[in-house]
Amino acid sequence: MPEYRTETDSMGPIRVPADRYYGAQTARSLTHFAIGADTMPRAVIRAFGTLKKAAALTNKALGLMPAATCDLVCKAADEVIAGNLDDHFPLRVWQTGSGTQTNMNVNEVISNRAIQIAGGTMGSKKPVHPNDDVNMSQSSNDTFPTAMHIAAAEEIVHQLVPSVAALRDTFAAKAKEFADIVKIGRTHLMDAVPLTLGQEFGGYVAQLDYGITALKATLPMLYELALGGTAVGTGLNAHPEFAVKVAKQIADLTGQPFVTAPNKFQALAGHEPLAFASGALKALATGLMKIANDVRWLASGPRCGLGELTIPENEPGSSIMPGKVNPTQSEAMTMVCVQVIANDVAVGLAASQGNFELNVFKPVLIHNFLHSVRLLTDACRSFREHCAADMPETDYEALEYGVGKDSGMVEVDQSKLKSKSGGKTRKGIDANRKQIAAYLNNSLMLVTALNRHIGYDAAAKIAKTAHHNGTTLREEAINLAPPLKDGSGTLTAEKFDQIVRPEKMTGPGAD
Amino acid sequence: MPEYRTETDSMGPIRVPADRYYGAQTARSLTHFAIGADTMPRAVIRAFGTLKKAAALTNKALGLMPAATCDLVCKAADEVIAGNLDDHFPLRVWQTGSGTQTNMNVNEVISNRAIQIAGGTMGSKKPVHPNDDVNMSQSSNDTFPTAMHIAAAEEIVHQLVPSVAALRDTFAAKAKEFADIVKIGRTHLMDAVPLTLGQEFGGYVAQLDYGITALKATLPMLYELALGGTAVGTGLNAHPEFAVKVAKQIADLTGQPFVTAPNKFQALAGHEPLAFASGALKALATGLMKIANDVRWLASGPRCGLGELTIPENEPGSSIMPGKVNPTQSEAMTMVCVQVIANDVAVGLAASQGNFELNVFKPVLIHNFLHSVRLLTDACRSFREHCAADMPETDYEALEYGVGKDSGMVEVDQSKLKSKSGGKTRKGIDANRKQIAAYLNNSLMLVTALNRHIGYDAAAKIAKTAHHNGTTLREEAINLAPPLKDGSGTLTAEKFDQIVRPEKMTGPGAD
Amino acid sequence: MPEYRTETDSMGPIRVPADRYYGAQTARSLTHFAIGADTMPRAVIRAFGTLKKAAALTNKALGLMPAATCDLVCKAADEVIAGNLDDHFPLRVWQTGSGTQTNMNVNEVISNRAIQIAGGTMGSKKPVHPNDDVNMSQSSNDTFPTAMHIAAAEEIVHQLVPSVAALRDTFAAKAKEFADIVKIGRTHLMDAVPLTLGQEFGGYVAQLDYGITALKATLPMLYELALGGTAVGTGLNAHPEFAVKVAKQIADLTGQPFVTAPNKFQALAGHEPLAFASGALKALATGLMKIANDVRWLASGPRCGLGELTIPENEPGSSIMPGKVNPTQSEAMTMVCVQVIANDVAVGLAASQGNFELNVFKPVLIHNFLHSVRLLTDACRSFREHCAADMPETDYEALEYGVGKDSGMVEVDQSKLKSKSGGKTRKGIDANRKQIAAYLNNSLMLVTALNRHIGYDAAAKIAKTAHHNGTTLREEAINLAPPLKDGSGTLTAEKFDQIVRPEKMTGPGAD
Amino acid sequence: MPEYRTETDSMGPIRVPADRYYGAQTARSLTHFAIGADTMPRAVIRAFGTLKKAAALTNKALGLMPAATCDLVCKAADEVIAGNLDDHFPLRVWQTGSGTQTNMNVNEVISNRAIQIAGGTMGSKKPVHPNDDVNMSQSSNDTFPTAMHIAAAEEIVHQLVPSVAALRDTFAAKAKEFADIVKIGRTHLMDAVPLTLGQEFGGYVAQLDYGITALKATLPMLYELALGGTAVGTGLNAHPEFAVKVAKQIADLTGQPFVTAPNKFQALAGHEPLAFASGALKALATGLMKIANDVRWLASGPRCGLGELTIPENEPGSSIMPGKVNPTQSEAMTMVCVQVIANDVAVGLAASQGNFELNVFKPVLIHNFLHSVRLLTDACRSFREHCAADMPETDYEALEYGVGKDSGMVEVDQSKLKSKSGGKTRKGIDANRKQIAAYLNNSLMLVTALNRHIGYDAAAKIAKTAHHNGTTLREEAINLAPPLKDGSGTLTAEKFDQIVRPEKMTGPGAD
Repeated sequence: MPEYRTETDSMGPIRVPADRYYGAQTARSLTHFAIGADTMPRAVIRAFGTLKKAAALTNKALGLMPAATCDLVCKAADEVIAGNLDDHFPLRVWQTGSGTQTNMNVNEVISNRAIQIAGGTMGSKKPVHPNDDVNMSQSSNDTFPTAMHIAAAEEIVHQLVPSVAALRDTFAAKAKEFADIVKIGRTHLMDAVPLTLGQEFGGYVAQLDYGITALKATLPMLYELALGGTAVGTGLNAHPEFAVKVAKQIADLTGQPFVTAPNKFQALAGHEPLAFASGALKALATGLMKIANDVRWLASGPRCGLGELTIPENEPGSSIMPGKVNPTQSEAMTMVCVQVIANDVAVGLAASQGNFELNVFKPVLIHNFLHSVRLLTDACRSFREHCAADMPETDYEALEYGVGKDSGMVEVDQSKLKSKSGGKTRKGIDANRKQIAAYLNNSLMLVTALNRHIGYDAAAKIAKTAHHNGTTLREEAINLAPPLKDGSGTLTAEKFDQIVRPEKMTGPGAD
Repeated sequence: MPEYRTETDSMGPIRVPADRYYGAQTARSLTHFAIGADTMPRAVIRAFGTLKKAAALTNKALGLMPAATCDLVCKAADEVIAGNLDDHFPLRVWQTGSGTQTNMNVNEVISNRAIQIAGGTMGSKKPVHPNDDVNMSQSSNDTFPTAMHIAAAEEIVHQLVPSVAALRDTFAAKAKEFADIVKIGRTHLMDAVPLTLGQEFGGYVAQLDYGITALKATLPMLYELALGGTAVGTGLNAHPEFAVKVAKQIADLTGQPFVTAPNKFQALAGHEPLAFASGALKALATGLMKIANDVRWLASGPRCGLGELTIPENEPGSSIMPGKVNPTQSEAMTMVCVQVIANDVAVGLAASQGNFELNVFKPVLIHNFLHSVRLLTDACRSFREHCAADMPETDYEALEYGVGKDSGMVEVDQSKLKSKSGGKTRKGIDANRKQIAAYLNNSLMLVTALNRHIGYDAAAKIAKTAHHNGTTLREEAINLAPPLKDGSGTLTAEKFDQIVRPEKMTGPGAD
Repeated sequence: MPEYRTETDSMGPIRVPADRYYGAQTARSLTHFAIGADTMPRAVIRAFGTLKKAAALTNKALGLMPAATCDLVCKAADEVIAGNLDDHFPLRVWQTGSGTQTNMNVNEVISNRAIQIAGGTMGSKKPVHPNDDVNMSQSSNDTFPTAMHIAAAEEIVHQLVPSVAALRDTFAAKAKEFADIVKIGRTHLMDAVPLTLGQEFGGYVAQLDYGITALKATLPMLYELALGGTAVGTGLNAHPEFAVKVAKQIADLTGQPFVTAPNKFQALAGHEPLAFASGALKALATGLMKIANDVRWLASGPRCGLGELTIPENEPGSSIMPGKVNPTQSEAMTMVCVQVIANDVAVGLAASQGNFELNVFKPVLIHNFLHSVRLLTDACRSFREHCAADMPETDYEALEYGVGKDSGMVEVDQSKLKSKSGGKTRKGIDANRKQIAAYLNNSLMLVTALNRHIGYDAAAKIAKTAHHNGTTLREEAINLAPPLKDGSGTLTAEKFDQIVRPEKMTGPGAD
Repeated sequence: MPEYRTETDSMGPIRVPADRYYGAQTARSLTHFAIGADTMPRAVIRAFGTLKKAAALTNKALGLMPAATCDLVCKAADEVIAGNLDDHFPLRVWQTGSGTQTNMNVNEVISNRAIQIAGGTMGSKKPVHPNDDVNMSQSSNDTFPTAMHIAAAEEIVHQLVPSVAALRDTFAAKAKEFADIVKIGRTHLMDAVPLTLGQEFGGYVAQLDYGITALKATLPMLYELALGGTAVGTGLNAHPEFAVKVAKQIADLTGQPFVTAPNKFQALAGHEPLAFASGALKALATGLMKIANDVRWLASGPRCGLGELTIPENEPGSSIMPGKVNPTQSEAMTMVCVQVIANDVAVGLAASQGNFELNVFKPVLIHNFLHSVRLLTDACRSFREHCAADMPETDYEALEYGVGKDSGMVEVDQSKLKSKSGGKTRKGIDANRKQIAAYLNNSLMLVTALNRHIGYDAAAKIAKTAHHNGTTLREEAINLAPPLKDGSGTLTAEKFDQIVRPEKMTGPGAD
């Protein structure tokens, strides 16, 4: 790293790498906040790109910024949005609590990149000044919460909801596939009356539907933007029309219905909208945790568990013992849910700690929020692709690798996964119909179906005898052969099979 | 407690107090679950009263229950709803995780009370049987989550939202009252540009508005009821029309738009709606914590704090030192917020732990949820009445006492508080205009107003000199008397006062 | 409630019930803090009794309090300690954050009760003044944290640890009872290599041992007392020897090694010791949750679950279906664990929110802490008595009832539970040896034992065939009859039984 | 990335990059667990290096592994420990819940690197087999929890405790520096009796001492290792002496007193020790949050806050307003504390979710635990260096940059920070003695010192008059000139100064 240039801010000169677009204030933050490894989420940086572009366009429209300057800012901002400049945003989450340093990081990068586009000298602040131009009509105090809302809304709409919906649709397809499989229900973990496996999976669909509905219910608040409040919420130094117009501009750029927040003092100092939306993330996580737990329990075995489902074998289980398929996708999912529940605590706590005109727990708040969004997005996709859904076989001998954008390490390039040529469909979650039927037939809960035909006492006697002998109801029913209440004789095997029809017990009004 | 009677259930006879309506299963739970002191929330018991009445009416309408039986059940249920039978529900939260024992407690109490009304023998189960009649078409597994939703929705709508709204309105009135008071803003706890005290309080109004909006956004989910799902969600043993009709009946009885849940398997095994609603409670708490903290900081002093606000003195501060008024209502409120944030963890965790056809963490979930609702309701009322709002003076010499329904202890009867005869209005939160003005005038932040008139450098010099000398901008401005840029002379006291007008800095587009 | 008297404080006269010992400041708190139903924990009140007695004795020893006054204070304090005056402490948790109002409640009750003992007039403050005498050398700011530590330490030592230890001993006895039962292990919920049921229960013993060790490791910090710090930690207005002597006095009264805290500024403003101890409560809860979950899963069934254990049937399961025993004690325990995990969040949050010379989140902190202690104590006892341990049969027809001290409601008097005359032992957790053996024999995991004798490939073939056919290893081994590597022939049934000995796989060095 | 080789596992061939040491199972995990950006913490990888080396040495000592193989494993393991192979561990936290895939990642990397050292062919598994050799006598189920404990203990001992201790020592030095500065105390945020600034900082020292003591109290449990338990805790396939010997070996390699865990079933399935240790991290965080909040409040201003302290200005505040120094290090610290409190929820939750012979929430648990350790370590260092301590001035024009190991981005190289040549000491936290004195003299709390000399009533009158007039006690005392009780005349300015001596009020026994 041999070449440097000097940048300056109000505190004086400071050295930065010649090939980095960031400037003095970013360098100071790097010096003073070497805390942990968590860099500001890329979604926040992208949101800032949108914000800076919208601000420039609005300032131009209001006659405050020359078209040429606006154009340069927009070009550089577009690169920020595209992610091309991600390597120029090295700041940590653990910085000033207003996110000022990240706002300045953005200002500096856009300024220097714009200067470069214009053929100027980086660090000269000409022709695009980081503060006077890129930050025009803005303050860190209103830009950062604006970027938080843009990032949160966009990630929910474009990443999380589609991923959850895809998993939901997979479960819906499975519910249809399993619609005719009657199985024993379980409440308190104990044998209960029957339902269909399709109904059970339909419950999962409903759980995810609630998750999606909850997320969507929080969007209107997230669409309200702080921008225009400037330093303390009054809008000092911003054009009176700036707030409304810039929100409209952001709406146009993103295609999302962003509007200016009705009250800017709240928008800087409170974070109820994100606290509420984090609650929706948690609500979704509670459903996913239940579903993932169900899947791993139902797939437990192969011999000494419940064994009603089978799941794909993605990794070596036991080399010698067939059928030992560890429910690793369920485990990853439930761990993600634990993290989301914990992240929600951080969000709530951070949201509660504002003072006066500003909440200075913004970076930790959005870090946890977007961490949850990302994890849920990825885990739903992973669970669907590698566990729930029927998928083409992967060609592991054709894996391609690259340096992971997130990890910085050489890893499998997910965008280049190939299906095995001539490969079959690898079945996702499947029903072990034999095992399900065995439980159902072996269960004593079906005895209730006999009540009407042989009376409660005779039915109970059959059940108790079967329980005592470890036999089935059917065996003991035939054995005991109680008289039928309709006087048509005694209970025979044929009659038993006629009466005990679990599939008739899977809806209302049934016996 | 000399008199007992014997009740029976399928496990045999068991002794209960002669004057209690509960029966065998309640007595068994009392024997086996002597854990802690938390009894099932009254709101759940009341909700069960509504549920049982609605079920009876629906069963009658479907031709399943004789009108006479229905009538008896409804009469007893009405007493449950009215709270008259609260002493007959001693069960703990820490019982079976489905709430079965509380469902049976309700069945037993309604049965025995109905029997008593009918002139029968308690414990005889005639003419109203706890299971066959009171629990007809139901299971613990669908009644308990139904009661959870009814209780949650009703408490939010009838208790919490009005209490928050009243506090919101008080803040709105204060915002109006303080609209003309220009004060220094504070960001990062540091002096910032000015705003009005009215704007600051307007921020509080907006924070509470978000809290209310969030709560309301969760209601549609809470209005969806599990009833009709019976034991595992299939509705086995319930009439096919029961689910829809009973929800309609509950809607009629409560005046709230309850409907049957679209998927009963979710409704028994998942709790996304309550997890989401708990997130709204937390979002509200984050706002209240910020507000209560602001109030106590702004009222800090009397000499060595910020001292911009005064609050009512409800308790003795220092007997000798005037002005030492501890912000006790803020402290109670912030402690409540801490509890709500923690309770939300319990709710989320509980909601995530379902298995198969049932979640058996229902009592702990609803206990925490309603605890939060209750605390927020009471704390908002208390904060409004005893801190924020202007109120008539209380006549402490006319206090009346009674045995508190909640505490079981002799305490002040809040419903009989009297205003002092001839008493004046006791001022709530008030502005210390003198102190606010002193800060404003003393602040160096106003220097920015001089930029346009004397140039940045001259302005900065004034500020630095004032900072160094511990003087005001005004003093040093007059002292230094820099030339005015418009050539009209030097900066005089008169000119300074003309230029530095903080009230012009409290809106967009200002200097 | 017809009779009243007038009490006064520095704010003037206020009416209180004639038969209550509390005075003006308690009455004011009752008026202004009608929030929720949570009264200050009795353990805190008892600790205050000890504290006030110790302070009086120390003040006397230092020559600051006449012996007669001290004697009166001690007599009244003894009644507080004994719990006789519990009805005179109606204040809520949600009060001033320093607990001042509870300190004054204690001062008032002791003063008035002492006055009554002395034959004086209640409210006269003579001959025992609530402030000058009962509160001598003290401040709310040092008394309340002292009472918190005393209460926490005493409840841990006298309630929680014995209850956990008793459950631990029950599991240890079960571990011995089940020492010879070889069962299939389960990892990832999947079949794994065998262990003994005794080893599994031995794991539970070790988990509880860690819980107890963790609790004990936090005691040294809890034994350090704030008393002597007075209002801000300097000890102003207290005798220089007061702090050390009063701690010694408290140690003598309680038999616990309390000492004066090394730094009083921390002791008033920080709560690291309680935050740490709450972490121990949570660590214990994590173990209990795992154990209670294991028990309910292992007892699941009767036909469609794991069914390796049986547990007592305390309540009616299905009236017709034998063997449906809901794991209600496990459910209560796991709900308690959820609460403890949530309460720990409140404790940590409260501990973090101090400012300058005081933390004013003390009541919410100790409320959550003692709530967890109480719930864990009771849940361990309940789980042991009603689930884990073999116990004499309860005589349900001889139940006695009374007004519960905690609930204020008529409930079963646990102290008068009788064993059934001529009753047998009701078995606690028991092994279903038949089911355990069936799993073990049916498992494919034992195939590893064959490797050495027939080679890896032949062993794998047996396993795969058994998996494919749904048969046992033994069946297919005999069927396939592979040659033995030692040349002694082929694998026979006899040889199989000689080789495949799961009990040899339950220790290190085994196959 | 053009070159690949093929690795195989029991599921078949799979392509990996030619220059990566990892093999088939790592590649499968990369394919199936593209979830989030959180890679397994380096401290866990390092701990695995130690573990694998210790296992090899122990296996050799037990005669199970040839010396040559052991030697190769040790050489490769040493590189893992040194961090040289960090780029070969790309797996995510969100994988199988036992950490199996990371254990295999380690086995594969050590195997291939050892093969490379030996001149063999990567992927050939000769002469060092990943399972048979590197994993000899081990299972993922006992190695991963062992690595968790080693990593946790080492990071606490070598990173966190020294960092906290250094901050503690800085505060201790400041306490000494400020020992003579008498200041007003604040309780409930309100003016209270005085103490010295040194005493206040001494409180911080005590808070951090508790944090350190708590951490150390958890180490004995963390020193107990699961290794030797193998797959389910029985130690199957491990030499009977392996467990004890390998723990001794780890102790020798690390210099920490590691021992074998007394119960391996707990060690695989429970995580009480880490849950408890996380509680200590949280206890520490509660103290740090209080301290960081105090610092930013006491440094608030410059004109409209408390202003008792000054802190270094590391970043540009207002360009025009001198003295606006945002408390950014406090903000970073308080955000870290929020994260630690939330991470503790994840740890507790994860620890509670074990089943039977294994807890499969291990990666999420250790990820959160080590995240907290890292953040606290760095934040304490950052707060000390850039806020609390007096430090040499940094030469910002001599900053050097490099690719950050954690971030993968170009950032300031902290190891090459230089002091400014000829630079002075940059003062850390400093006292604003003038402001502190002003508050003290202005305070009304000192009135108590007059009681003894002029009587309570006269003293109260002075205070009330001063409060009313907004004047000082001294002014009104001279004005009112009440008679002295000793008959020596009236209260004069001289006498006032003699009596009102705040410094005499900062210890026990004072007035």
